[in-house]
Amino acid sequence: MQGQSQQQAYDRGITIFSPDGRLYQVEYAREAVKRGTASVGIRAEDGVVLAADKRARSPLMEPASIEKLHKADDHVGVASAGHVADARQLIDFARRQAQVNRLRYGEAMGIETLTKTITDHIQQYTQIGGARPFGVALIVGGIENGEPRLFETDPSGTPYEWQALSIGSDRSDLRDYLESEYEEGISTDEAVGLALDTLAQTNDEGLTPEGVGVATITVDDEQYAEVPAEDLESILADRDLLATDEEDGDDGESADADEE
Amino acid sequence: MQGQSQQQAYDRGITIFSPDGRLYQVEYAREAVKRGTASVGIRAEDGVVLAADKRARSPLMEPASIEKLHKADDHVGVASAGHVADARQLIDFARRQAQVNRLRYGEAMGIETLTKTITDHIQQYTQIGGARPFGVALIVGGIENGEPRLFETDPSGTPYEWQALSIGSDRSDLRDYLESEYEEGISTDEAVGLALDTLAQTNDEGLTPEGVGVATITVDDEQYAEVPAEDLESILADRDLLATDEEDGDDGESADADEE
Amino acid sequence: MQGQSQQQAYDRGITIFSPDGRLYQVEYAREAVKRGTASVGIRAEDGVVLAADKRARSPLMEPASIEKLHKADDHVGVASAGHVADARQLIDFARRQAQVNRLRYGEAMGIETLTKTITDHIQQYTQIGGARPFGVALIVGGIENGEPRLFETDPSGTPYEWQALSIGSDRSDLRDYLESEYEEGISTDEAVGLALDTLAQTNDEGLTPEGVGVATITVDDEQYAEVPAEDLESILADRDLLATDEEDGDDGESADADEE
Amino acid sequence: MQGQSQQQAYDRGITIFSPDGRLYQVEYAREAVKRGTASVGIRAEDGVVLAADKRARSPLMEPASIEKLHKADDHVGVASAGHVADARQLIDFARRQAQVNRLRYGEAMGIETLTKTITDHIQQYTQIGGARPFGVALIVGGIENGEPRLFETDPSGTPYEWQALSIGSDRSDLRDYLESEYEEGISTDEAVGLALDTLAQTNDEGLTPEGVGVATITVDDEQYAEVPAEDLESILADRDLLATDEEDGDDGESADADEE
Amino acid sequence: MQGQSQQQAYDRGITIFSPDGRLYQVEYAREAVKRGTASVGIRAEDGVVLAADKRARSPLMEPASIEKLHKADDHVGVASAGHVADARQLIDFARRQAQVNRLRYGEAMGIETLTKTITDHIQQYTQIGGARPFGVALIVGGIENGEPRLFETDPSGTPYEWQALSIGSDRSDLRDYLESEYEEGISTDEAVGLALDTLAQTNDEGLTPEGVGVATITVDDEQYAEVPAEDLESILADRDLLATDEEDGDDGESADADEE
Amino acid sequence: MQGQSQQQAYDRGITIFSPDGRLYQVEYAREAVKRGTASVGIRAEDGVVLAADKRARSPLMEPASIEKLHKADDHVGVASAGHVADARQLIDFARRQAQVNRLRYGEAMGIETLTKTITDHIQQYTQIGGARPFGVALIVGGIENGEPRLFETDPSGTPYEWQALSIGSDRSDLRDYLESEYEEGISTDEAVGLALDTLAQTNDEGLTPEGVGVATITVDDEQYAEVPAEDLESILADRDLLATDEEDGDDGESADADEE
Amino acid sequence: MQGQSQQQAYDRGITIFSPDGRLYQVEYAREAVKRGTASVGIRAEDGVVLAADKRARSPLMEPASIEKLHKADDHVGVASAGHVADARQLIDFARRQAQVNRLRYGEAMGIETLTKTITDHIQQYTQIGGARPFGVALIVGGIENGEPRLFETDPSGTPYEWQALSIGSDRSDLRDYLESEYEEGISTDEAVGLALDTLAQTNDEGLTPEGVGVATITVDDEQYAEVPAEDLESILADRDLLATDEEDGDDGESADADEE
Repeated sequence: MQGQSQQQAYDRGITIFSPDGRLYQVEYAREAVKRGTASVGIRAEDGVVLAADKRARSPLMEPASIEKLHKADDHVGVASAGHVADARQLIDFARRQAQVNRLRYGEAMGIETLTKTITDHIQQYTQIGGARPFGVALIVGGIENGEPRLFETDPSGTPYEWQALSIGSDRSDLRDYLESEYEEGISTDEAVGLALDTLAQTNDEGLTPEGVGVATITVDDEQYAEVPAEDLESILADRDLLATDEEDGDDGESADADEE
Repeated sequence: MQGQSQQQAYDRGITIFSPDGRLYQVEYAREAVKRGTASVGIRAEDGVVLAADKRARSPLMEPASIEKLHKADDHVGVASAGHVADARQLIDFARRQAQVNRLRYGEAMGIETLTKTITDHIQQYTQIGGARPFGVALIVGGIENGEPRLFETDPSGTPYEWQALSIGSDRSDLRDYLESEYEEGISTDEAVGLALDTLAQTNDEGLTPEGVGVATITVDDEQYAEVPAEDLESILADRDLLATDEEDGDDGESADADEE
Repeated sequence: MQGQSQQQAYDRGITIFSPDGRLYQVEYAREAVKRGTASVGIRAEDGVVLAADKRARSPLMEPASIEKLHKADDHVGVASAGHVADARQLIDFARRQAQVNRLRYGEAMGIETLTKTITDHIQQYTQIGGARPFGVALIVGGIENGEPRLFETDPSGTPYEWQALSIGSDRSDLRDYLESEYEEGISTDEAVGLALDTLAQTNDEGLTPEGVGVATITVDDEQYAEVPAEDLESILADRDLLATDEEDGDDGESADADEE
Repeated sequence: MQGQSQQQAYDRGITIFSPDGRLYQVEYAREAVKRGTASVGIRAEDGVVLAADKRARSPLMEPASIEKLHKADDHVGVASAGHVADARQLIDFARRQAQVNRLRYGEAMGIETLTKTITDHIQQYTQIGGARPFGVALIVGGIENGEPRLFETDPSGTPYEWQALSIGSDRSDLRDYLESEYEEGISTDEAVGLALDTLAQTNDEGLTPEGVGVATITVDDEQYAEVPAEDLESILADRDLLATDEEDGDDGESADADEE
Repeated sequence: MQGQSQQQAYDRGITIFSPDGRLYQVEYAREAVKRGTASVGIRAEDGVVLAADKRARSPLMEPASIEKLHKADDHVGVASAGHVADARQLIDFARRQAQVNRLRYGEAMGIETLTKTITDHIQQYTQIGGARPFGVALIVGGIENGEPRLFETDPSGTPYEWQALSIGSDRSDLRDYLESEYEEGISTDEAVGLALDTLAQTNDEGLTPEGVGVATITVDDEQYAEVPAEDLESILADRDLLATDEEDGDDGESADADEE
Repeated sequence: MQGQSQQQAYDRGITIFSPDGRLYQVEYAREAVKRGTASVGIRAEDGVVLAADKRARSPLMEPASIEKLHKADDHVGVASAGHVADARQLIDFARRQAQVNRLRYGEAMGIETLTKTITDHIQQYTQIGGARPFGVALIVGGIENGEPRLFETDPSGTPYEWQALSIGSDRSDLRDYLESEYEEGISTDEAVGLALDTLAQTNDEGLTPEGVGVATITVDDEQYAEVPAEDLESILADRDLLATDEEDGDDGESADADEE
Repeated sequence: MQGQSQQQAYDRGITIFSPDGRLYQVEYAREAVKRGTASVGIRAEDGVVLAADKRARSPLMEPASIEKLHKADDHVGVASAGHVADARQLIDFARRQAQVNRLRYGEAMGIETLTKTITDHIQQYTQIGGARPFGVALIVGGIENGEPRLFETDPSGTPYEWQALSIGSDRSDLRDYLESEYEEGISTDEAVGLALDTLAQTNDEGLTPEGVGVATITVDDEQYAEVPAEDLESILADRDLLATDEEDGDDGESADADEE
């Protein structure tokens, strides 16, 4: 019965304040983020690194179709965690904003401006009735005025800038790891390694080249580029992170998940 | 009483997050998919195969009117599972999108682009109030740039690419079978056989030519084509899958179902 | 009290999924169909037959005003069961669609196309908020390209093609009878007889010429035609179905029904 | 407490199906009809008769202002029972429809067409949200192509044609009386008498000329005409229906009623 | 607790039918009318009289600002009882209607037509969602074609014509008095006296010239005219109705009332 | 638990009638008025006086920013009590109305007309759904045709004219005082004194020049003018109302109030 | 269970009055403000000072991205406390208003006018349905006509002017401190010191230059300017407020907060 009345409570309603000043729907949307696999972002001296855990739930699923890393514009990448379909909406929104900026002002959109345009869009879904919040967090990374920038958007619509961060499952553990290992001034290549080390923290069996995705945008070329699987394999091998046993499929029903 | 209050809870409400970050309406819509009979999609070396269990609930019902396989465009087919009327809406949407693409750009729409246009449409029904989610999953298969592609859409609006998959009832068992039997590089003809083998896994009495539907789109002609009943009969016979007892009607009330 | 809280539950709400993936409002609408008297449709070799139980609830009521058989276009007839006022809405919708088709394309609308236009209209009322589903099922019969076609629409918006079917009360029993008695290749005249036999299955006192309605559309003239009462009387007499006792009125309150 | 929670249940909600396929709001609207005093309609050989119980609730109230009989067009009359203010809306609607028909087609609107235009209007209020059903039933009578026609509209929006009928309170008893006394082929004058006899069935103290209203539309002049009070008095006297004691006022609060 | 759940029930909801066919919101609005002080209307041979109990709740309140009598047009007056702010809305509506009529047709609006325009407006607020009914009753009196006419509008939107009536508190007692004392053919002057007698029935301490309002519209000049306080004083004195003790203020909180 | 379910009841809902004909939301809005500090209005022979208790909740708060007295137009002032933000909306509305009147008719708006325009605006928020009532009462005072006028608006939208009145906290006590002390024909200067005497009734420690506000509009110049603090100080001293201890700040949380 | 039903109550509903005249949603929004870290505003003789506690929740978070101090226009600054995403909406609104004012009138917008434009915007979200109130308070400070002005906006939409104030957590304690320490006529430099002293009241470990933000707008240049970190460090050291231990990160989950 408790389960019933509990569910009943959440099958209706809109986003309003609780007596202690919290927005439950936003907090529940944050739970949807935690249900997704982890993504990591690291700001290096000469670039930005985005990395994501994208293990497929079945060996028959195409790893490339698991959308965790997205190119938003030439100079901007986005890593997501949480409700996949919601992430797609925000990425599309970001792409349109970046395009409009290029058309209107003839130049690339700033990373901070783009991030805040996204968070303002997210905020609307937490205040105006008739829709639910977005169940996804994003790491927005890119080059602005020759400087690497790294931002986070959360379901409340708050923007934060980070040196390094993780979103999605095990956020707390991965952040502890990043706080202890991250050093200012590291190179993009070192940051790729640190990102993989971080993702490996909660993957006891190690990582596979197909099960992770890594993208970089460097100050040099200001181009979003995904690291090829063969390169990932050698990096993982070098760092002793390569999974020995590749059976990463799962059993049955749990393959029906909305979050990555 | 419990049944009452249970029903009461679901007779109202909109799609919002539960405390653990789930969207109940989307999960219930996924149950509607499981209530439908199975559909299977297999990507072969030289084409794509779609197959569906379409047993009629009465010998007086025209098997051809059981809509599980749909031609979305010359080069794209769709297999569905779940709420039939909802499937029709999505297929119509897909057809219009494909047509518009041809008119606007003078070329066939890519399979991935078409799939993501559908899933973005589905997502809207899970976030904006005033409507329920679509209670149907689709397998979208076709040829893009000379390559076979095979995608899935689910009620949350998430797109995934597969080598082989099943949707609808007994999804878990059929996927296990596909994972163990599917091999990369099989031909379209072999894939037709594998698709029928898969559907037969949960049909102990075997299959009938009228009770299944199979469609192929090959790299050669890029044309959606349904396999004729006579061909199906000989294939079923060859694979020893032909039902010996044809009485596949059912008794009474259960014929009133919304799902296939 | 139980009755109270039960009613309370259904006096509000919209059409959403239950945890097992069902749409209660659609299922309840299907109950409204079952509350209506039976209608039967049979596809013959050379035509289509629609028949309906249309017993008046009072001898003072004009049998002709009990709307169970409707002419949708010259070549299309519709038999209904369930909520009468809802049926009228769908018939009007069908007539407008058929008319528009003639005006726009200069030719009669196909039976299958017309049916699916109706079911897509019905589906909207099960997904978009602010209205309830239609509480009526239809049998749509007619001639398309010289071939008799026979379809069903239900409250979920699913279209099915049948050789022979019944809708409304006692559906299960009447379908059993049709499954055992229907034979492919029967003539329209034989189908008229079979339709009356079917309706008589659950009318122990027999039928009256005013208490039933029968319409045919044959391949020859492609014209919807209702069988005159005098012809019905002789047919009923020939088949020994004629009611001996004509007192078919009812007592009091139960005459206030919304369904036929 | 029970009364409270009972009321609570009906102070909110919209018109949707109950599990047994009924529309409670429509059924409750039908109760509003029963709360109104009776109206009777009789189709004679050469005309139509409408009659209504319109006893005033106070001797100071003008009987003429109790709206139970309405002229919808020259050739159409309407008798109502139930919620007075709702009846006025439907009568206004009918009048506008009849007027538009004359303007557009230059001829009087058919009685059946007019009735069905009204019932389709009523049906909308039972399916689309944001309003309640109409709490009134109408008897629509008139001359069409030289023939008397007599129809009923109920809160569900169902049209029926009758030889003779009653609506409002004591419907069941009055219909029994009509079924036993009505004979086809009676003249309009005889029908006036029968209508008054019927109304008198549940008025033990007899009728007064001011307490009833009678209108006729005959085939001869196709004009709605109300029978003058003096004629009514002599008819009532002839039939021994005249009330001996005229004190038909009521006591206090019950004068505040919405239904007639 | 009962009080709580009781209130809870009425703090939400819309105007729909209860199982016994009543509209609770309309009935509760009628209670708001009863909470207002009494108004009386009397139709005389040569005019119409409107009178109202308008005792101020404080000696500091301007009696003239207690709006119970309103001039709707030169030839039409309105007396109200119930929710004051609602009354103002309806009076404004009436004035605009009367003005438009003069502009459009160049003549004064009929009393009956004006009344029914008001009641049709009131009815809309009882059927269409998104607003509550009007909590006020009106007595509409005036001269039409040289004849005095007197109507009532209630919260359901029902119009009635009266010879004499009262609305507001003690309606039942005042009507009993009017029924026993009113005689057809009385003059306007006599009607003024009768109106004051009626209001005095439930004012044991008598009436004050400031505590009542009386307006007349006579056939002679067809002009709404309020009887001056000095005239009222002498009339009250003549009829021995004059209050001896003028302390008609009240104590504290109860001065905060929405109804008059 | 009671507190919980109590709150629950008022966190939703719209303004509808209770069974005894009351509008709870309007009555609760009236409670918001009582939560505000008192304002007083007095009509003198030669002008109008508005006064308000505007003690700051902290010595650091600027007394001038506590909005209790407002200039609506040159010749009109408004004193408010209750929800401050709501008061601002109504004052803005009043100012726009007064401005429009000057532009359109080239003359100052009448005080009565302005008041009724405001109350009609207020009434809309008590009848139409989608918004809550205004939680504020206003005293509107000014000069019209050379005469001082003084009106009140309350949350129900009822306008009343007064010789002298108070709104806000302790209304009942302050009105008793005014009823016993007010005399017709007093001068504006005497009225200023009476207004301060009245406010002092419930301020045991006396008043401070900053803690009260007084405005006058006299027949002579028809100009809204606030009495300077130095003048107030001497008047308070003269009447022996001056507070000896100025520590009028409060402790902590209670400074977060919406009402004044 | 209590927790459940408690949450249930706040997951739905709109902003309406409680029986004691309070707006719960506004009061809960005020709780959201208290969940944010403190901000302080002080009006000096020659300028305005805004200061904010902006400790990062992780050493990897960029302190500059914690938005507590905002430049609204050259001459106006805003400090916020509460829901960050809501604050951004209001700041954007303020900036657009200030810009429009410059474009339309060619001059800087007054601080009081700007503040009241913001509070009127806030009020709308507390009265009109379909959205929740803003969960943020603002301190708006700037120079108007050569004078420093300092205002507060709260979730109810009430504007207040202050000499010195704090918003956010520990408001009561910080205000006590300000009330005892603030002196009129202090210089901007002294006010910077007092602001830091105030923030340090509830930070036992002292403050860090990155963990606080201070901005000034002086009468001299009327330019919003943030105090550089190096200046802050020396000021903090001078006042003995500098934190000795810099480990101001937090542990895990609590980093997911919407408020600052």
